[in-house]
Amino acid sequence: MEKAYAMVLKQFGGPLECREFPKPQPKNKEVLIKVIACGICGSDVHVWKGEDKRSRLPMILGHEGIGIIEALGGEEKQDIMGRSLREGDVVVWNRGVSCKACYTCLVKRQFYLCPSRWTYGFSKSIDDYPFLNGAYASHILLTPETEIIRIESREKAGDQDYAPYASLCCAGTTTACAFEQVKPESGQQVVIQGPGPLGIYGVLFAREAGAKTIIVVGGTPERLALCQEAGATHVINRCQTQAAERLDLIKEITGGQGADVVYEMAGTSEAVQEGVGYLAPGGTYASAGVAVDTGEIPINWFRDVVRKNARIQGIWVGDGKNTWQALEVYRRHKSLLDKMISHRLPLTEAHKALQMMEGKEVIKALLIP
Amino acid sequence: MEKAYAMVLKQFGGPLECREFPKPQPKNKEVLIKVIACGICGSDVHVWKGEDKRSRLPMILGHEGIGIIEALGGEEKQDIMGRSLREGDVVVWNRGVSCKACYTCLVKRQFYLCPSRWTYGFSKSIDDYPFLNGAYASHILLTPETEIIRIESREKAGDQDYAPYASLCCAGTTTACAFEQVKPESGQQVVIQGPGPLGIYGVLFAREAGAKTIIVVGGTPERLALCQEAGATHVINRCQTQAAERLDLIKEITGGQGADVVYEMAGTSEAVQEGVGYLAPGGTYASAGVAVDTGEIPINWFRDVVRKNARIQGIWVGDGKNTWQALEVYRRHKSLLDKMISHRLPLTEAHKALQMMEGKEVIKALLIP
Amino acid sequence: MEKAYAMVLKQFGGPLECREFPKPQPKNKEVLIKVIACGICGSDVHVWKGEDKRSRLPMILGHEGIGIIEALGGEEKQDIMGRSLREGDVVVWNRGVSCKACYTCLVKRQFYLCPSRWTYGFSKSIDDYPFLNGAYASHILLTPETEIIRIESREKAGDQDYAPYASLCCAGTTTACAFEQVKPESGQQVVIQGPGPLGIYGVLFAREAGAKTIIVVGGTPERLALCQEAGATHVINRCQTQAAERLDLIKEITGGQGADVVYEMAGTSEAVQEGVGYLAPGGTYASAGVAVDTGEIPINWFRDVVRKNARIQGIWVGDGKNTWQALEVYRRHKSLLDKMISHRLPLTEAHKALQMMEGKEVIKALLIP
Amino acid sequence: MEKAYAMVLKQFGGPLECREFPKPQPKNKEVLIKVIACGICGSDVHVWKGEDKRSRLPMILGHEGIGIIEALGGEEKQDIMGRSLREGDVVVWNRGVSCKACYTCLVKRQFYLCPSRWTYGFSKSIDDYPFLNGAYASHILLTPETEIIRIESREKAGDQDYAPYASLCCAGTTTACAFEQVKPESGQQVVIQGPGPLGIYGVLFAREAGAKTIIVVGGTPERLALCQEAGATHVINRCQTQAAERLDLIKEITGGQGADVVYEMAGTSEAVQEGVGYLAPGGTYASAGVAVDTGEIPINWFRDVVRKNARIQGIWVGDGKNTWQALEVYRRHKSLLDKMISHRLPLTEAHKALQMMEGKEVIKALLIP
Repeated sequence: MEKAYAMVLKQFGGPLECREFPKPQPKNKEVLIKVIACGICGSDVHVWKGEDKRSRLPMILGHEGIGIIEALGGEEKQDIMGRSLREGDVVVWNRGVSCKACYTCLVKRQFYLCPSRWTYGFSKSIDDYPFLNGAYASHILLTPETEIIRIESREKAGDQDYAPYASLCCAGTTTACAFEQVKPESGQQVVIQGPGPLGIYGVLFAREAGAKTIIVVGGTPERLALCQEAGATHVINRCQTQAAERLDLIKEITGGQGADVVYEMAGTSEAVQEGVGYLAPGGTYASAGVAVDTGEIPINWFRDVVRKNARIQGIWVGDGKNTWQALEVYRRHKSLLDKMISHRLPLTEAHKALQMMEGKEVIKALLIP
Repeated sequence: MEKAYAMVLKQFGGPLECREFPKPQPKNKEVLIKVIACGICGSDVHVWKGEDKRSRLPMILGHEGIGIIEALGGEEKQDIMGRSLREGDVVVWNRGVSCKACYTCLVKRQFYLCPSRWTYGFSKSIDDYPFLNGAYASHILLTPETEIIRIESREKAGDQDYAPYASLCCAGTTTACAFEQVKPESGQQVVIQGPGPLGIYGVLFAREAGAKTIIVVGGTPERLALCQEAGATHVINRCQTQAAERLDLIKEITGGQGADVVYEMAGTSEAVQEGVGYLAPGGTYASAGVAVDTGEIPINWFRDVVRKNARIQGIWVGDGKNTWQALEVYRRHKSLLDKMISHRLPLTEAHKALQMMEGKEVIKALLIP
Repeated sequence: MEKAYAMVLKQFGGPLECREFPKPQPKNKEVLIKVIACGICGSDVHVWKGEDKRSRLPMILGHEGIGIIEALGGEEKQDIMGRSLREGDVVVWNRGVSCKACYTCLVKRQFYLCPSRWTYGFSKSIDDYPFLNGAYASHILLTPETEIIRIESREKAGDQDYAPYASLCCAGTTTACAFEQVKPESGQQVVIQGPGPLGIYGVLFAREAGAKTIIVVGGTPERLALCQEAGATHVINRCQTQAAERLDLIKEITGGQGADVVYEMAGTSEAVQEGVGYLAPGGTYASAGVAVDTGEIPINWFRDVVRKNARIQGIWVGDGKNTWQALEVYRRHKSLLDKMISHRLPLTEAHKALQMMEGKEVIKALLIP
Repeated sequence: MEKAYAMVLKQFGGPLECREFPKPQPKNKEVLIKVIACGICGSDVHVWKGEDKRSRLPMILGHEGIGIIEALGGEEKQDIMGRSLREGDVVVWNRGVSCKACYTCLVKRQFYLCPSRWTYGFSKSIDDYPFLNGAYASHILLTPETEIIRIESREKAGDQDYAPYASLCCAGTTTACAFEQVKPESGQQVVIQGPGPLGIYGVLFAREAGAKTIIVVGGTPERLALCQEAGATHVINRCQTQAAERLDLIKEITGGQGADVVYEMAGTSEAVQEGVGYLAPGGTYASAGVAVDTGEIPINWFRDVVRKNARIQGIWVGDGKNTWQALEVYRRHKSLLDKMISHRLPLTEAHKALQMMEGKEVIKALLIP
């Protein structure tokens, strides 16, 4: 095959157009990936509609990709675990690329906050190197600096269905980052707001942290059921309860204490406002779901922050380490996480997939080139 | 002397009345203190006006006391450093008493969040044991569980002026607790909002944590000058600048980064709303000043919390460890901290002192029995 | 029943003698426990043989007890979760009692290092209050300061076999303390040295911390099999391998890195010397098994400590929080942990049980009054 | 000037020979430095004598350099604080270069443990890129990946004596790394073993961490005096005391507790063996001084590690962040740290300087090209 193709967004809110590209020859440590699948992320909807300030048109969306190495640039290239990469390996990659040379990377050692960080499928147009830079495509070209993680070596990669691993790169990574920064102690009680992909990963991470109680608050019965299957000890349906009832329920379940940790994975102002009230004294609120500016959220500062000696921790994306952590969780809970994929569409139906995502008709949809 | 006396509050907002009490005989590990001085704290004004829900009338205010041991109950009693206490020793004490037996004390190990915690000068009426339970008094009776810290042994205690140490018990302790939970790394850049007693201690703690830059924002030139003397590298007068200017100044001083840590020691909604905006990505906002319910504060959650991966840490009071830490800071910076005491009034003028505090005419005023 | 009885050690190394005691009436917050079972701990053998300096004869051994509340002193007494205790409740307790008033308890907040800490079954003779102070007995009297944890309320306590919970109080608690201080990150690789009770708990804690790899090194096939059942991903039989082989194996299993965390739960000098060599650069060695002075252990300081930037963490006992954490782990893995109990003997055969323990014929033996 | 020159070691233990090199033209982000001064480090003696396994002959020693940018490669190059570098700027640099792409760099985020890390003046011969790769030279060529830290911009750089800053790159950096990993809490009591360059920096870092007590143990009165001037509260002369006396003294000074933190900056087995005994229960031993294999050190594991619940932390080198932290400390204490430089020799006397270092005749000697 001499050509690659990708779905290109030319106008915010408009349809995505399938377009052919010359297939690039990787140089140096560049890696050409044949895409197996790309997840549709909630933030793709924001990009599509022009709500994300980082975007430049015309562009290729897609930051939740998984694929097979089709070609490698000349030099030896390793994944972040130190394994030599070869054609045929199945891989994922850190969707963001940081400079590793600035104050944030070297002094704060928080790569994901690097001011020069750019993201596949988000921040570049098709006129910016590496051009094929989003995963709504048959191929994507990874730059030498991109952090790659091998899922399966070419020897072992068989007929297995690798497409569902696509959720690692965004949902899995961000959840891992939340749990890296805010890990429950053994025996603690946890609330997760939002039973979407982050929330489902969240239940597994909470279980693997030794949480005693895992309460999920959400509005969709199917998602809540999947959370229970993943190990949630309690679920609360947001559509069948009032806020005051939910607070009472959480107090009751936690033996009157409130939650030691609340993970906000819902992305709404209402969730934040309500969720900080769930905390026990000394508790922590980890907010990972709010991905676009939702304006100001009123917080009862004395009651919910100071008097409780509470910690609020904003969680922004994550990095390659977290993708790897999510992969390890995936391996241990594959059959459960595979169920998260509710829909698969051909790549050319990207537009339809975005509309379904906007309408919250899916848990996680994949585009298959 | 057979009698003790105390200033008693009988009606919220009303005058305090000097009243005689029989002087108690300490039993078991109780300790009777002859008060040297008691500080007037901002929260005393809230108690006086009935804005603190913990208060029960008639009561004796005063939680920032320092005194001399006048009598000890039968058994051997040690201070928290393991030194045997004797009559004549100069001491301070943890203003709060926790149960050391509950979930919060034993599992969370955060004594100051103990739900049974009560506070001298705050939460008990004169009808509640130990009756003489506030430091606006000639004497105060400390219960066996009270954490005492010796400042000077009776052998060494001479004519020195110990009264200024009174600020340790609240301002010093809370500041130490803030820095125990949120300590700047060596070389980090810090903003302190509010140059009152907490802020002045804050400058010293920040210096002693190796902060490179210490910016104090406040409205009173005298207080800002004292902060500079304590080691603030920059001060910004809130009354001579607009919020946007202050933000620009802080960006400029910090080389465009913003602050690694902001300590809120001002106690107002405006300070909080403005201060979270000072943070650099990855920064921490430690809020220690808001001591009464000020209602809801609107926070731009995406911009200031999630996108920055910021941490907000509520700081509630502190415990005996923190009082001891503040004492050690006091010893190293005594001449500076002594200057914090702007006024001394006779105990009987407590009412006037509260009015001065309310009018912000003082930095720290002391009542002298 | 008007009498209690206990097995009394009168001479180190000698037989234990069954002796009658008047059954005490609990006062204030004392609690009289009817013992259900008491575990035989490895350190009991040291006490029995006079190798523990804390012991004073004549004494009652037994620090791994579980029992039913037979009588409560007058005042309301709660467990550390804040639940009111009543006659008939099934409970365990923190085997150590700390003062909660000294520098170590209040400033360091490490209760288990309190210099005044004393331990049931270890440090008191039968002439020291509370006299019935070891669990090799029909009854034990708990002092008011003892931290109690309810396992089952009297309403729910039925015919269930509660005896196996006895392992919580020492093995479970110490393991929880090790994992509280040194918790693996999600995805890390762990080695546990010693598949005894600590090691079995250790496998469960490691799994619940999200460890990717859990390698257990030990000498007894039955114990290793139980570890595998608990979730160990690999076991290495110490009796069928040389030290150099074990090191090679661990390198191989961990992809050449070495272990991120090694938990020493074996208690021998050989284990320590070998185990620090298992560490990956940046790794942590948590040493919880060495319970008596084994003299000096030679460490290659440059290679194994400095060059690797390694952390070595000594683990000493644990406190009530850790007992509670172990209890929560027990509840989640009861069927597995129950299998740890390899032998049950009547209380009067305590002497025989100690001999079996010394001969390493048991995993965990219980004495049943 | 068209030529550069450097002191080349051709035979371990032999003399260093001054040799001319063509002056390189920096490309891309390479930076050519005109060396102002290079410190002689204790580990240089080990390299010189062939005791460091990383060394390959013929080589240029020198990892403690400071210099002026003479030429920059084509592209814009920034220092780690994000400031654009220009010819004439005074700079230092991280002596080690890590890959920023491997498991250790990305997952453990400990750059200084990167297995591919190489070090200027240590690990390369003059036949390895970048050839002029040690600072015993008129010029050194820094690779694009090298982390540079600007001390003074060319506009401000005047006649000031910048040579003493050379100690930042090794002594300062390693000390900063020790204090980043093990920072005393406010009020804690600290012992520093070894009053050499690390120890002197150590006193300043301990002071800036709020340590109450700083005891330095060493053998050279001049060095101990400098430590006192830096802020040590007590010094103990190792040559005038026995080990048992020193332990007693430390117990006495610390009020019977022992040290909360001991920093080993002496580099001998004897220091380690003695120093772990200084710890209070719950204390930490940070070992930063042992830089070559000294064989096995016997540790009383039960008494000094487990029973005390002690932490031992190996400290290996440090990275650019730490160099920057040390620089900030240097700025705040310049006059004191300048005194650390006891000798300056012309570059051509490198051999003599190494001999003086070996004979411990110097605190810190500089070579001046």
